[in-house]
Order: sequence, then C-alpha cells, then structure tokens
Amino acid sequence: MAVNKVNEDLLRERARYTFNIEELTNFIDGGEEGTRNRREVEDMVIHVKELHDEVPEDYLSHKERYENAVKKGCILIDLLKEHVLRHSSFDAYKPSNMYRVLSMAKEVSPVLLHMGMFVPTIFGQASAEQQEEWLHKALMLEIIGTYAQTELGHGTFLRGLETTATYDPSTEEFVLHSPTLTSYKWWPGGLGQTANHCIVVAQLYSREKCYGVHAFLVQIRDSETHMPLPGIKVGDIGPKLGFQTANNGFLGFDHFRIPRKNMLMRNAQVLKDGRYVKSKSDKLTYGTMMLVRVMIVSDAAYELSRAATIAARYSAVRRQSMPRPGQPEPQILDYVTQQHKVFIAIATSHALRLTGGWLWDAYSSLTHDLDQGNLDQLPELHALACCLKAISSRDSNSLVEQCRMSCGGHGYMSSSNFPTIYGATAATVTYEGEYTVMLLQTARYLMKAWKEALGGIVLTPTVAYMVTYNKAKPAWVNTPEAIIQGFHAVAVGKVKEAADGIEYHQNSGKDYEDAWNAASVMLVKASECYCRAIICETFWKEIQKHSRSMSRNLAVVLQQLSELYLSYWVLERSGDFFQVRTVPLTRTKFEFVSFASPKCHCQMCTGFVAHITSVVVLAVQVSIQNLTLTFCTRKRNEFDIGSC
Amino acid sequence: MAVNKVNEDLLRERARYTFNIEELTNFIDGGEEGTRNRREVEDMVIHVKELHDEVPEDYLSHKERYENAVKKGCILIDLLKEHVLRHSSFDAYKPSNMYRVLSMAKEVSPVLLHMGMFVPTIFGQASAEQQEEWLHKALMLEIIGTYAQTELGHGTFLRGLETTATYDPSTEEFVLHSPTLTSYKWWPGGLGQTANHCIVVAQLYSREKCYGVHAFLVQIRDSETHMPLPGIKVGDIGPKLGFQTANNGFLGFDHFRIPRKNMLMRNAQVLKDGRYVKSKSDKLTYGTMMLVRVMIVSDAAYELSRAATIAARYSAVRRQSMPRPGQPEPQILDYVTQQHKVFIAIATSHALRLTGGWLWDAYSSLTHDLDQGNLDQLPELHALACCLKAISSRDSNSLVEQCRMSCGGHGYMSSSNFPTIYGATAATVTYEGEYTVMLLQTARYLMKAWKEALGGIVLTPTVAYMVTYNKAKPAWVNTPEAIIQGFHAVAVGKVKEAADGIEYHQNSGKDYEDAWNAASVMLVKASECYCRAIICETFWKEIQKHSRSMSRNLAVVLQQLSELYLSYWVLERSGDFFQVRTVPLTRTKFEFVSFASPKCHCQMCTGFVAHITSVVVLAVQVSIQNLTLTFCTRKRNEFDIGSC
Repeated sequence: MAVNKVNEDLLRERARYTFNIEELTNFIDGGEEGTRNRREVEDMVIHVKELHDEVPEDYLSHKERYENAVKKGCILIDLLKEHVLRHSSFDAYKPSNMYRVLSMAKEVSPVLLHMGMFVPTIFGQASAEQQEEWLHKALMLEIIGTYAQTELGHGTFLRGLETTATYDPSTEEFVLHSPTLTSYKWWPGGLGQTANHCIVVAQLYSREKCYGVHAFLVQIRDSETHMPLPGIKVGDIGPKLGFQTANNGFLGFDHFRIPRKNMLMRNAQVLKDGRYVKSKSDKLTYGTMMLVRVMIVSDAAYELSRAATIAARYSAVRRQSMPRPGQPEPQILDYVTQQHKVFIAIATSHALRLTGGWLWDAYSSLTHDLDQGNLDQLPELHALACCLKAISSRDSNSLVEQCRMSCGGHGYMSSSNFPTIYGATAATVTYEGEYTVMLLQTARYLMKAWKEALGGIVLTPTVAYMVTYNKAKPAWVNTPEAIIQGFHAVAVGKVKEAADGIEYHQNSGKDYEDAWNAASVMLVKASECYCRAIICETFWKEIQKHSRSMSRNLAVVLQQLSELYLSYWVLERSGDFFQVRTVPLTRTKFEFVSFASPKCHCQMCTGFVAHITSVVVLAVQVSIQNLTLTFCTRKRNEFDIGSC
Repeated sequence: MAVNKVNEDLLRERARYTFNIEELTNFIDGGEEGTRNRREVEDMVIHVKELHDEVPEDYLSHKERYENAVKKGCILIDLLKEHVLRHSSFDAYKPSNMYRVLSMAKEVSPVLLHMGMFVPTIFGQASAEQQEEWLHKALMLEIIGTYAQTELGHGTFLRGLETTATYDPSTEEFVLHSPTLTSYKWWPGGLGQTANHCIVVAQLYSREKCYGVHAFLVQIRDSETHMPLPGIKVGDIGPKLGFQTANNGFLGFDHFRIPRKNMLMRNAQVLKDGRYVKSKSDKLTYGTMMLVRVMIVSDAAYELSRAATIAARYSAVRRQSMPRPGQPEPQILDYVTQQHKVFIAIATSHALRLTGGWLWDAYSSLTHDLDQGNLDQLPELHALACCLKAISSRDSNSLVEQCRMSCGGHGYMSSSNFPTIYGATAATVTYEGEYTVMLLQTARYLMKAWKEALGGIVLTPTVAYMVTYNKAKPAWVNTPEAIIQGFHAVAVGKVKEAADGIEYHQNSGKDYEDAWNAASVMLVKASECYCRAIICETFWKEIQKHSRSMSRNLAVVLQQLSELYLSYWVLERSGDFFQVRTVPLTRTKFEFVSFASPKCHCQMCTGFVAHITSVVVLAVQVSIQNLTLTFCTRKRNEFDIGSC
C-alpha cells in the first residue's frame, strides 16, 4: 500500500476551492495570532513519538486504556507546562482551538478536572491564606484534585445533596459523612484512581443547624502510597458510552475528619467556636457556573467540525452505484441526499463557533460588570447560557450521528473516530446541566419577560422583539433578514402558547407549579424556539460583520452557509412557521410571517429546497477546505482507508 | 446492601396496573403457546452459571471480549441444539421473543451468521447434491461458515463488486482473486477469527466473458490448524460502535483455487467445459433478501422495548428536585417532560411489533405465492419491506437514545445497558440496506404508482388511497380514523411534490437520473410519509382487531397507546399537515385535511398536547407492566442501582 499518497478525488476537490485557505484558517482561529498559537502547540505535541499508540486504544481493556491515558497525560503536562504558564490570563479561557490538539490521546485526560475545576474553585472560593497554602501545590501538580458535587441520587437538585459536613468545635474539625448509598459522590472525573485531593460539596451543619451546601478541600488518598485514607471509600464507576479514560469515580465518607481551615472560606465561614458567618452575596458564584456552559457551545462546534470534516472527506473519496450504465460510479458527494446530510453539519459547526464566540464576549463583559457590582445582565446571560448549552450540544450530537451514518458501514467502525466523537458530544447533552432542565431554566426567564412585554416594559436585547411583535408585519420574503424576523415571530408565538398553557391550567384549579409542569412540553418548545432565533440571528449578523474585512470570495461562501442554516431550519420547523401566522394574541392579530396567501404554502417549500440545492454547490468547497484545517492534527485517528 | 429487595416506588407502581399481566404477556408473545415456548428457552438458559460474567464484558479488551463470546456461543449451541431442531420449520422464523434470551451474552454471537445466512444460503441456492454434501455438516457445526458479499469499496451497489471467480476448464476450478484493496471482503460477521468456510459472492468469468455476481462456497481456514489456507488473507476489521463480539472480518484472495462444484448451482451453472447455463428467473432470490428486512422491523421493536423498559423503570425509581418546599422529591415519572420522552418509546415498541407481525404475514403469504409462480405481490412487498426496514430501525434508534438521555448521567454508564442497545440499533439503520437507499427504493415504487393513479389505474392496497385522494374530503376531527386519513393525505401530497420535482427538473433539461437526484430529498420525504401512514394505520387497526378478543381493561390501555402514537406524529409533522390542505394538484384542489378555518390552527396543537397528557396517565401502567416481561431475563445487564 502506498504511503502518504493523497487520494486523487480529494486532490481534485481541493484544487477547486475559490478562496484563500489561510484566510479561512485565520477566521476560524480568531485571527492570525490565533493560528500562530495553535500551530505552536500542535508542533510541540504532534511529533512526540510516545503519544502515538502502537495498539489503538479501542483494542485495550478498561484498565489498559486508563493506564495509557495517564502515561500520555504526564507527557503532555511536562511538555506544555511552560506554555500554559505563559498563557494563563482570563483571556486564555476564550474559546479557541489552541489546545484541542491535546485530544491526540483520542480520549480525555484523567487529570482534566484538576485544571478544569479543582484549580478554578481554589481561585474562586478559597481565602487568601488558603490560596497561599494550596494554589502553588496545585499548579505544580504536587497535589492532584477533582471536584466532587454530584451524588448517586442527586444531580440536578443541588439542595438535595446528602453528604454532611458537621462541625465539631471540640477538635476544630469537620466530620464528613455519607449517610446513605444515594449520598455517595458519583461521576467526578479523575476520582476513580487518579486524584489524591478533591473539592467536596456537602451540607454544612454547625451547632445543630444546617446552613446548606458548602465546599471543602479534602485529601482522600495517601500522598506516598496513594491508598485511600481510613474512612474513605473511593473507586472507579466503570465503563461508559464514551469518555472511557476520564476515570470517573465514586466517593463515600465514614465519619471522616478534616481541619476546620479546609472549608473554602472566601465567602461564608465557620469560626472556631462554630459560629457561622454568611457570604455577602449568594450570586457571586453564578459566574463560574456559567463559564463551563459558555465553553460548551464552542466545544460542540469543534466536535461537530471534526465529524463534518470526516464525512465530507469520505463523501469525496467514496464512489458508489451506477446511475448511468458504463459511466464511472459517482462520488457520493454528488448525491443530493448526501449533501443534505453533510452540508448542514458544516454550516452548523460555523454557526455554533460564531455563537460560542459571541456568548463568550457577553460573558466576558458580564464578568467585568460583576466585579463592579453590577448584576443587571445576569438573568439574561443565565437564560442564554442555559438554552445555548442545551441546543448546541444536542444539535452537535445529532449531526455528528448524521455524519456518521452518512459514511455507511465505515462510519460504524472505531477507526473512523465517529464513535469517540459521538461519545463525547452525547455526554455534553447531559453534563453541566441536563438538556430539558436547561431549557426549563430559560423558560422561567421567558415567562417573566412575556409578562413584562404585555405590561409594555422595555426588555433586554434578546427578548426585545416581544414588545414590538404587534407593530412590525412585513411580508414574507426569501431574505435572511425576513427569515430571522420569522424566527422571532415563532419564538413569540411559542412563548405565548406556553404562557397561555400555564394560565389555562391555573384557571382549571392547579397551583402554579402543577400548571408549570402540565405546560412544560410547551415551555421547552418555547425555549428551543427562542434559542434557535438567537443562533440564526447571531450566525447571520456575525458573518455580515466579518464579511466587511474579508475577501469577497470567502465572504460569499460563508454567507451561503449561513443562508443554508436559515433555510434548513425553516423547513425543519415549517409547522411552527405555518402556525404563527394566525396565533391569536391577547391584544392583536399576529401576522408577522405573511404566509397569508394560500398559494404561498407549497412555493415556500419548493423554493427553499431549490435554494438549499444551489447553496450546497459552494458549500462543498468550504467542507473540503475544512479538511486541511481541523483534520491535519487528527490524521492518525480519522479515516485511513485507501491511500488518502 | 440489601439483595433481592425491590425498590418501594417500583412496587407501588406495579400495584397500580389495571389489567391482567399474563394477558398482555401472551399478547406480546403472540399467544399462550408463544409465552410457553419463550419461558422454556429462558429456563434452559438463564440458570447456566457459566453464562454469567465474573467481570462485566465492558471491562475486557477486544480480544478478551471475543474469547468470552466464543465460550458462551459454544455453551448455548450445545444447550439449544435439540430444541432448535424441534422448531425448524418455516414458521419458526416468525418473529417472536423466543430466542431473544440468547442475548444473555449481552453482545452478539460470533457464529450468528452461520445459522443466520450461511445455512439459509445453502438451503436456497445449493443444488440437491451440494446440499447433501454440505448441509448436514453445517447443521452439526462440523464446518462454520459466514456470508461474504460486501467489499471495502462496495456495499449498496452489488453489481460493482470486484472480487473475481474465473473458471479454468483445464483443471475444472474457479480462481478467486481480489484485484484491488477495495475488492477485499469487509464486514462479514464471524470472518475475523471464527469461520473456516464462507459463501463468497464474486463476478463470474468463463470463456473471457463476465456473467455477473454468483455465490461460491469456499473453505478459507484449515480444518485442523484453523490457519488461513495459502492464498487467503483473512482477519478482524477491529472495534466498532457496537456488535463488539460479532467478529466482523476482511478477506482477500490471491489466485485462490476452488473446485468447479463449489459454485452454488441450484439456479445458474457453469459446465465442465466452461459453458454458462442461465438461471430460470432472476427474481427467485428476492424472497431471501427480503426475509432479513422483514425480521429487522421486529428486531427494532424488541430493542426499543428493552430501552423503554429501563427508562420507565428508572423514571419510577429516580426522585429529583423539590417543586414544593418541604415535600418529598417527586418521582421523575411525574414530570410531563419525562412522560413525553418515555411514553412515545413504549407506544412505538408496540407499534413496530404489530407492524412487524403484519409484515411477516404478508411476506409469508408472498412466499407461498412465489412457490406457485405468482409474482404479483412482489413489487409492493419489496417497497414495504424497504421503507419499513428504514423507518423502524431509525425510529427505534433515536428513541433508544431518547430513553438513554431521559435517564440523565446514569443512562451514559455501560451498566445501564443503553450503550449496548444503542450500538445494536445504530447498526440496524445501516446494514442490510442503508436508510436513504431503502427509502429511495420505495420511492421508485411510489413514483410508478403515482403515474398509474393519475391514469386512473386501480392500485395495490397500500397505495390505493392515491386514486381516491380527490374524492374524499372529510372534515378534520380528532378521531384516529380521521388522523389516519390525514396521514394518507400527507403521503399523497409529498408523493405529488416529489413527482412534480422530477418533472420540473426534466423540463429544465435534465435527464431522468439527474432529475431524480435533484428531487431526491423530496423523494425520501415521500417514502417516509408513506411509511408513517402504514405504521399508523397498521398499529390502530391491529389494536382494534385484537381488542375484540381482549379484556376491556387491557384493550383500553393499548388503544390509548396507539392514539398517543397518532397524536405524537401529527404534532411532529404539523408542517406537513398544514401544508397538504392547499397542495395544488394537477387535476383538483386537495383539501383532505380540513385545517381550512384559520381558527383551527392553534386549537389543533393545544388540543393534541392536552390529549397526549391525558393518555400518558394510563400508559405508564403499561410501561411498568412491561418491566416484568422484557426485563426479567436481563436483570444482570440492566440497572442495578440502589436496591431495585
């Protein structure tokens, strides 16, 4: 078999792009400097022989995979320590593809939560003295930590945690205890066999009173022998759908004692005599909780771009069937059904990346405001982060699967790398805020906004259109701007429907929480529509904005991808669009989207289908282009069939 | 931890059912005798100690999992040989849950394709003498075979296979050869390390002429040493998303010689001197190809019922959040959003099981007709088997995933068994006819039927409504019968749209195949709608039929499940329903579904949501009931959290 010979179909496709590769590369990396930084990290990592597996990870046992991941984790830490220290400001958290190359190890690192949650929690919640004691050790990995909050029986409902931390003033210690099986900590990454310390979230008791959940820093394994300390039960929760090497673990306490000073005391405190000192504000912890959700939107974009790249590449290489006797089998990329599956994945990866960047900027400015004591933007950003976390992870997950299936049987093989990508995106839908729970959080915000809109109150930017819904009634036209207005109309229609649903159930004698539950399918739908409108509008506006400083050829292609995204979702949600034209509002008839003429119905769909077909012709150039961007660092893990 | 103590929430739910457990059990098993047979097999298998793993399979390496599966496969073969021989008539293939217990091994057997495809091919395609030589050996497992058709570069397009079988009259042998990398056989289960024989499908050449693909029986490994014979390259294709122990393999030939008599000669033949004798009819092989697709509908139902059972059970046991301060956390089953996810999975498992049975009966009667030389029903049944294979596997797969996600983080763990079920259903969408390819097969039939309908020709049963579409225009009412008529209207609307699409592209200068490709997204949609109408109608009618001989309490619950299915899909496809009311047909305006009054739009949706909510109250009793049916034999592999 020839080595390093690129498949000819692929070469031909790549020769057909109409724009500058480096320009798109820089755009995706957030500028020339972003590309430079990413390449610097890639160059450091990609040539290290020890990071390339002799036997692919999928052949190994659960234990061997973990050991392999620990080995690679150690190599990467040594390699990148200095680089990471050079990039450790707040801005370094800004989503980029810089460190994505760390997934060379194919699956996640068992020390992921050390840097991802243990260290930030010390930063955010430990007092100055505590930071002095722990932070340097943690940064130098002299101690390895994780973050233990979720319990076997308690995930979504934080107040329901059962682990107790009871203060004993006679010894000035907290006694940590797991009173039930369901109170065992469950899921923390690295807890299985890796960490020797962790942040534990537990119900604080002092002087026989419960003060709710607080965080404690706990040593769980001996620093020399790495054996669990007496009173600690800890271990691996076992194999999963994905994240095989995250080393997720369980943790139980049998009246385990820690010094008083191990409670994180930046905000609330327990004094020597057991007196409790309250935190100045409960809301100060909001910011860090949101950080992870904000990051997930960009993660979802990245994973999807990998899947779309593999699928586009496979579609160019794979030839199948013979519609014309005697002619060569066509590339499957030439089948419109294949384009219909793959191109929306490409478009969505761009949509989510730009939305993720936009959300980061909003979060970044909120953080600044919070530091200044200004909490005004908090509720809207909370609502945005919740629904965007939910929809981006879900869309990414189902499109990854669509890409996998578009590669037929070959997509089912581990060597395609789809199963690993799917395992990662599938987890994202659930962790850090379960999909439905997140959308219902956003729905609370929307119901409040709707009430204010009816009262004529001026609303925050992303819901402002609720106030003006009854003024603007432009005719339906096939322009992106009009479609975005249509998405707003759908969002308002669904918000109203949900609000009416709650009211209906309340009028039938239910209390508010029961009425909320009865209307919850509609509430979820309302959140989804609100969120879809955000993504559509952000994608289109960001592309318009960046187009101005772009070469025309690249701008045209990106603009078509955003048009594809808009058209695709109108067709996917055509029922909602048809429906809103006659939603009877309280005050006025609502005919924002003018599907009024019966003649339009069929034309809309036919028109859109045709539209999508014309868009894809150029979109394919972007997909092929993408290959060289997101693919180069992953070559070994992705497709290697034939000689491409 | 208490052992064998059933969770109290589960006990309470089970105490609330309103119908006879055994009656539903018998209904699912296809009668009392079915239940008896299933239990007989279960009893034989479930108590065999050697079938229970000491270490769960998910912890093992790829090699260890395979070895474990071979061990279990051998035990099961010994155990069931006699029972299988007692049940080896054609009727024994009728879908039932009788042998499902074989999945005790959690994953598939490496000898699955021996009984599933190797033996049936000898039955169907070998001559009488050939059967005498091979059949007994195969049935006694003295030789172990598989079926090698798909190649690395060729799946869907059978005529594109590259492996050659060239007849050499000087030695009276065929020379099998793999001329390229893409011609390697790829995927056959058991080929990796298990089989020593296989059926090979290859291009037959004799006297320098190609006669197309034919089947050959080939020994590939030494009977004593099990080493590949000289000229054979064979091995494992590696880990996959699922089916880890199916032992899928590759196979290449280097001018490998087999005796002339190893060509399967029931139909076509090659004589000693190389003369080719044609088969009497090409269509005789249709029947066996269809068999697998027909069976997949029932497989999809079964896998989904397992997932729905786990999800319903988890929803009863899991308690989370506190909508009312001070009150206990509710079972998550009481959240309407959770019901919305799980109950449709329960309903769909029943829908697909009944549709699978209905399709089996049609297939069974077709087989009888074919034996009599009557091919009339063949095209319609081919169209039905294609789209039902596609939609049932896809629906099952996405609902399995919906069930998994409804269990939050716990659904992500291998111990929930969801990842294995997902791996199985995901494969079904692709194998034995890829999803989109299948729907496009059905679309060919629909386009032909549509042309005939326009010409006023009387059509076969499942498309007969195409002729009468413009006569019946009943008002929209919330009855199952009216909804089914609505689904017919949607199907006709989409069929017409696709046909118009092809015509449009032809008029724009494209030839038929290019026009077909340009309209293919619409063609897929048309097939999907046709298929959805079939499932809706079959589910409803089968329940109505069986209700007559059922106790009223059971009939009520099953009827509600079928109503839920109908309502759910109207809402999922509301755009299609809205749209068909004004689809301008060639001959007449088409207003079958009378959404004519604008006032109706919103009411329909609100009405349906309310309807679903009321249906689920009783549906939950079915789900809990199901637990005892599909769950008992799987206890060890499913959830084992807490003490339930």
